[in-house]
Amino acid sequence: MSADDFIVTPWHVEGEIDYDKLIKKFGTEKISSELQSRLKKITGEDHFMLRRGIFFSHRDMNRILDDYEKGKKFFLYTGRGPSGHTHIGHLVPWIFAKWLQEKFDVKMYFQLTDDEKFYSKSGLSLEDTKKYAYENALDFIALGFDPKKTKIIINTRNIQTLYPIAAQVAKKINFSNTKATFGFTNETNLGMIFYTSLQSAPCFIEDESVLIPLGVDQDPHFRLTRDVAPKIGKQKPALIHNIMIPALEGPGGKMSASDESGTIYTTDTPNMVKKKINKYAFSGGQPDIEKHRKLGGNPDIDVSYQYLRIFFEPEDKKLKEIYDDYKSGKLLSGELKAILIEKINKFLEVHQKKREEAKNRIEEFLLENK
Amino acid sequence: MSADDFIVTPWHVEGEIDYDKLIKKFGTEKISSELQSRLKKITGEDHFMLRRGIFFSHRDMNRILDDYEKGKKFFLYTGRGPSGHTHIGHLVPWIFAKWLQEKFDVKMYFQLTDDEKFYSKSGLSLEDTKKYAYENALDFIALGFDPKKTKIIINTRNIQTLYPIAAQVAKKINFSNTKATFGFTNETNLGMIFYTSLQSAPCFIEDESVLIPLGVDQDPHFRLTRDVAPKIGKQKPALIHNIMIPALEGPGGKMSASDESGTIYTTDTPNMVKKKINKYAFSGGQPDIEKHRKLGGNPDIDVSYQYLRIFFEPEDKKLKEIYDDYKSGKLLSGELKAILIEKINKFLEVHQKKREEAKNRIEEFLLENK
Repeated sequence: MSADDFIVTPWHVEGEIDYDKLIKKFGTEKISSELQSRLKKITGEDHFMLRRGIFFSHRDMNRILDDYEKGKKFFLYTGRGPSGHTHIGHLVPWIFAKWLQEKFDVKMYFQLTDDEKFYSKSGLSLEDTKKYAYENALDFIALGFDPKKTKIIINTRNIQTLYPIAAQVAKKINFSNTKATFGFTNETNLGMIFYTSLQSAPCFIEDESVLIPLGVDQDPHFRLTRDVAPKIGKQKPALIHNIMIPALEGPGGKMSASDESGTIYTTDTPNMVKKKINKYAFSGGQPDIEKHRKLGGNPDIDVSYQYLRIFFEPEDKKLKEIYDDYKSGKLLSGELKAILIEKINKFLEVHQKKREEAKNRIEEFLLENK
Repeated sequence: MSADDFIVTPWHVEGEIDYDKLIKKFGTEKISSELQSRLKKITGEDHFMLRRGIFFSHRDMNRILDDYEKGKKFFLYTGRGPSGHTHIGHLVPWIFAKWLQEKFDVKMYFQLTDDEKFYSKSGLSLEDTKKYAYENALDFIALGFDPKKTKIIINTRNIQTLYPIAAQVAKKINFSNTKATFGFTNETNLGMIFYTSLQSAPCFIEDESVLIPLGVDQDPHFRLTRDVAPKIGKQKPALIHNIMIPALEGPGGKMSASDESGTIYTTDTPNMVKKKINKYAFSGGQPDIEKHRKLGGNPDIDVSYQYLRIFFEPEDKKLKEIYDDYKSGKLLSGELKAILIEKINKFLEVHQKKREEAKNRIEEFLLENK
């Protein structure tokens, strides 16, 4: 563990993250109230994920907005490493990306990095990760993207398109750079070492600037991309970062698709959601009802409350009520969990229907190699 | 320079190579007289490149022949790094590969590694190396391969086919392995580091054993491939190695496509060939005619003689006559050069005609991605 008591890399997140420290460490910028106001003015909407600091940090957002106001378009790019089924935490940046797409009326690329997860997980075959890539694509499509403006990249499927771009990047990054950025060692496999060039490639797929909404753990990849961009005559990608979504079992990690018990999958039944939340969701409440009534709970460390704040309760007034009631002891942990369970199951009922429909529409979304 | 006074790697050959030492260093096997006899028995022919030790070393040739005699087929794979126009030295392993293909009636893959040369040469763009790949393909086709049994792979064009295979290899090789094998450092770029997996990929493109005729400088790539093969459930590739073809200006290097003066290109005019040989071909003769008549020349270091031995004079009787006459002083350096010039120009006259015809046939040879 580092001196900061937390680690954030694309393949490993550990400890309780101090996001202000992380901003300094990574050299990004905090989303200021000025930037929030600017986004509100342009989009006509104050998105709760910005207001609540779920998206908390950025690189070059102001340049993107300056250019946009001068009539210069950009495009969006985000993605997912398909190491398992989609869980609800994954949807956070996708939902925000969709909002950005609608407000700015721009193209979007969504990259599924089946090769990366094959390289990084000893137990997964390329067939496994490819299968998950298709599974995950259904969840993405289910959110209601427009296939005319949205293309899904699956790395092994679209390598013909990606590789010549990745090659330009790969020539400009050396092993030292990956050691410094990712902590790679002499034991790191060649796939992992090369891989960052493939995550860079979609940044340069269009002749426009790119804005990338993403989990802050992915920032190191694009630090390298930003260093390379001017060397290959391209503009640096702009980024907007969300916090890590906590695992059910509590802060100190991101929700992981490979940890079954700590994870709500988009394919879970209402009963599974209920059981998982009741059994595993880390509680900020007191050990018994009497104490809880007397001392109150701590919503700031309560995972159920956090899920409402991050994703499932967009209305500030309702959220504040829950916060106050939990803090005062009026709302019990079981009751708070019940609120979340209902919210998630309501969401998943619709999502799973759309996810089924997505199975017939996947081809419309897949990028065709030229 | 190593203690051996020579260096042989895929990207750098320097010094006067002691091939017996190299066999020990690389851990290959010398082609024994038993193996030569065995090949003669099976093919019905005693190829001069084997007889003269142009192909001098191997790995697992006996396994390939054992399997062949039991009715198990293999396929051939060779290639070229397209860093420039084809020179006559490149044709040596291709001509031998063609002989093997005809005698054993097997499939062949020919890989043009445009990405590798882009990664390894700072002055070349991917467009440059791709252009050279097509140029080099014409020379390969001109040698008279059968398109039904012979497919040309161009890395960036066939990455869709190669990448999933390369990924299996890349996961099993780490940076340490490439340091030990190629001498890579922290400053080596990511493309170079990953690249060996792409040179491995064609080994596993068919569900048969592979035999690779190649310059011995390329052996390190396949040492890694041979280590990986059993880990991914495949058979180790077998290899048969040719010596480095000396540059015009003399031993102590391989003929390099990027050194204009020291190189005879397949597209050179008769006059260019004449000028280059007369001006640059390293001579084993004496400084003046009187001394030459008296002391004789040294054919073993004379490049013109070596070109005749390696490629242009397949008849042993004629070659011996030239050897003896040069050694005795009867044949002058200018006369020896004149013999070679005539041989090369005769060869190139036919080759250039076939090379022109190849322009209309290239599509038949290019591997289609599935």
